[in-house]
Amino acid sequence: MKVKTENGRRDMRALWFEAGKLTMIDQRSLPHQLRTVDYETCDEVAAAIKDMVTRGAPSIGAAAAYGICLAALKGEDLEDAAARMKAARPTANDLFYAVDHMMDRLAAGDDPVQAAEGYTDSIIEKCRMIGEHGGRIIQDGFRIMTHCNAGALATVDHGTALAPIRQAFQDGKSIFVYASETRPRLQGAQLTAWELNQEDIPHSIIVDGASGHFLRQGVDMVIVGADRIVANGDFANKIGTYEKAVLAKELGIPFYVAAPVSTFDFEMARGEDIPIEERSEEEVTVVAGNLITPSGSKALNPAFDYTPARYVTAFITELGLLKPEDISRLRRD
Amino acid sequence: MKVKTENGRRDMRALWFEAGKLTMIDQRSLPHQLRTVDYETCDEVAAAIKDMVTRGAPSIGAAAAYGICLAALKGEDLEDAAARMKAARPTANDLFYAVDHMMDRLAAGDDPVQAAEGYTDSIIEKCRMIGEHGGRIIQDGFRIMTHCNAGALATVDHGTALAPIRQAFQDGKSIFVYASETRPRLQGAQLTAWELNQEDIPHSIIVDGASGHFLRQGVDMVIVGADRIVANGDFANKIGTYEKAVLAKELGIPFYVAAPVSTFDFEMARGEDIPIEERSEEEVTVVAGNLITPSGSKALNPAFDYTPARYVTAFITELGLLKPEDISRLRRD
Repeated sequence: MKVKTENGRRDMRALWFEAGKLTMIDQRSLPHQLRTVDYETCDEVAAAIKDMVTRGAPSIGAAAAYGICLAALKGEDLEDAAARMKAARPTANDLFYAVDHMMDRLAAGDDPVQAAEGYTDSIIEKCRMIGEHGGRIIQDGFRIMTHCNAGALATVDHGTALAPIRQAFQDGKSIFVYASETRPRLQGAQLTAWELNQEDIPHSIIVDGASGHFLRQGVDMVIVGADRIVANGDFANKIGTYEKAVLAKELGIPFYVAAPVSTFDFEMARGEDIPIEERSEEEVTVVAGNLITPSGSKALNPAFDYTPARYVTAFITELGLLKPEDISRLRRD
Repeated sequence: MKVKTENGRRDMRALWFEAGKLTMIDQRSLPHQLRTVDYETCDEVAAAIKDMVTRGAPSIGAAAAYGICLAALKGEDLEDAAARMKAARPTANDLFYAVDHMMDRLAAGDDPVQAAEGYTDSIIEKCRMIGEHGGRIIQDGFRIMTHCNAGALATVDHGTALAPIRQAFQDGKSIFVYASETRPRLQGAQLTAWELNQEDIPHSIIVDGASGHFLRQGVDMVIVGADRIVANGDFANKIGTYEKAVLAKELGIPFYVAAPVSTFDFEMARGEDIPIEERSEEEVTVVAGNLITPSGSKALNPAFDYTPARYVTAFITELGLLKPEDISRLRRD
C-alpha cells in the first residue's frame, strides 16, 4: 500500500523485516498517527501480537513467522519459542499455521530469514492476485460498498476486499467507496478509511444502518472479506455483513467476497455450524473510554455473522472468480 | 412511564405543568442522570427546546403549548411570544401546529392552562390507545426488536413503538426487547434502553449491524415509529429502519409501524418524495467528544430513510391496526 509520510508517499507494508529487526505499523495509534515499532526478539513480537500492535489473521501469521525467524537467529530453543508464540493469541489459526510452517522449514535446514520472507511473500502474492482478478470486474465510474477492514493492514499488503479497489484505482478507473463504520470496533471508520485516505481513493464513511439507504440510492457492487468460507459456500465475516448481502440481493446489486483459498474450510458443511465468537459487552457500551449506555442495560456482542451462499455473486480468490458451487470442485482438485 | 427515583418508582411524564411552572426531564443528561428543570417563562421554554432539553416532535409540541400558556399567564404580547417560540426549532412541524392551536384556543377565550393541558392530554391519549391496540398483538414469550427511541420521552408519555411493549409487559406477558443502538445519535442505546431500564422490561442493546443476526436467530416482531407516513403507505423513520424492514420480510417476521394518525401525510404520494435531512458529518465522526475517524475522511449522514409499504405488516394507530391499503380510505373519512 501507499502511505503518506513527511517525505511524500511511499510503499509500505503492515510489517517488514530489515537488518535483523521486524518493524510493524502500530495499528493501535491509527487513524490519528502513523507510528512504527521495531522488535528484535521473538518474545517482543509475541507480546506485540498479544497487544494488537498488528491485527488481521494474515498479518499476525507473518509477524509470527518473523518472530520464529528472530528466535532462530538468536539461537534460542525453537520448541520453547514456538510454544510461547502460539500462546500470544490462542484463536488466530494463521498464527499456528505460520509457526508450524516455520518450524518445518527450519527443520529442513532453510535459512530463517528466507523462510519467513517466503511465507510473507506468499500471502502478499495471493492478495495481489485477488486484486488483479477482482480489479477486472470493477468498471469505470463504479460505486463500491465495503465493510470492516479487509485491507493491507490485515494482510501485510494489498488486502482482500481492498485489493480489487486499489487495483481499479491504480488502473485509472474513477471509483467511489462507501466504507461502513463497522460498530462496535469501528474498523471501517478507522482502518479502511485510513488506508483509502493514504492513497486518496475517493470515499465516505457511513454508519452501518445507512447501508440500505445508500445501496438503494445507487451502488454498483459490494465487496467484503471473509473469516471462513465453508463447503456449501456459506461464509462468516464481521457482524453486519449478512445485512448487506440480503439488501444487495433485494436490490439486484452484485455481492462479492474476496479471500484467499486458505480461508476455505472444506471440512465444515454449512454456515450454521460456524462458531460465532461472543465478545465483551464493553465493546458496545464504551466508546473512546466513555460509557454510552445506561448502567443497568446489557449488550449482546456477536463479533461475526454468517451469510448463506445464495447471496454471494462470486468469491474473488487468487485462482480467479469462483461461484459457490465451484467449491466442491476446488476441494477435489 | 414509570421512573426509578430515590423514593421508589413513580409515574412521570417527559414534561408536566404544576403550580405555574413547566418541568421537563433534561434528556441531555440521560442515560446517566435523571435531572429535571423548571421553566417559568415562554422564552425559557423556547430556549430549552432549542437546547434540546426535550426532544421528539410530540414532546416539543407539548412544551411549546405550555410555553404559550406561560406567555398568556404573564400577560405577554402573544403574537410576539408565538413568533419567538416558532423560531426555537424551525423544522419541527408539531411545534408550529401546537403554537397555532394554542393561539386559536386563546383567541376563543379558553383558559391557557386548560388549553395546554388539553393539547398534551390528547397526545398522551393517542399513545395510550396505540399501546392498547398494539399490546394485543404481542404474545406471551415474544422477542421484539425496535430501533431509535419512539418512547415516552419523545411523546410526553407511553411512546409510539414503546407503547405496545409497555402495555404487553404491564399485562404480565414475558417479553424480551432488542434495542438497536441507532448510530449516529445512539437514541436506542441511550433513550430506549433508559426507558426499558426504568420499568425493568428485559432487553439488550445491540449494534445496528447485528440486527440481521438476531432477527434470523429468532425475533417474533419488529416495531418501529415513523416520522412521516405518506399516501401509498411508504414511511420515513430514523436511518437504519429500511434495513430492518427488508430483513424482516426476507425472514418472514412481522414488521409494525406505530404512529398516531397525525403522522400521515395524505398530500405526499410516495416515499421517494419525502425529503431526507442530511445532518452534519460530526455526528458520525465524533463520539463522546472524540474524533474516531481519520482527519482526511468525510462522512455522509442522512438522518432518515424511507421504507416502501410492501414491507409493512400494519400500522398501529390510535384507531387500531391499519394496512397500507387502508390509508386511502382513512383519507376519505
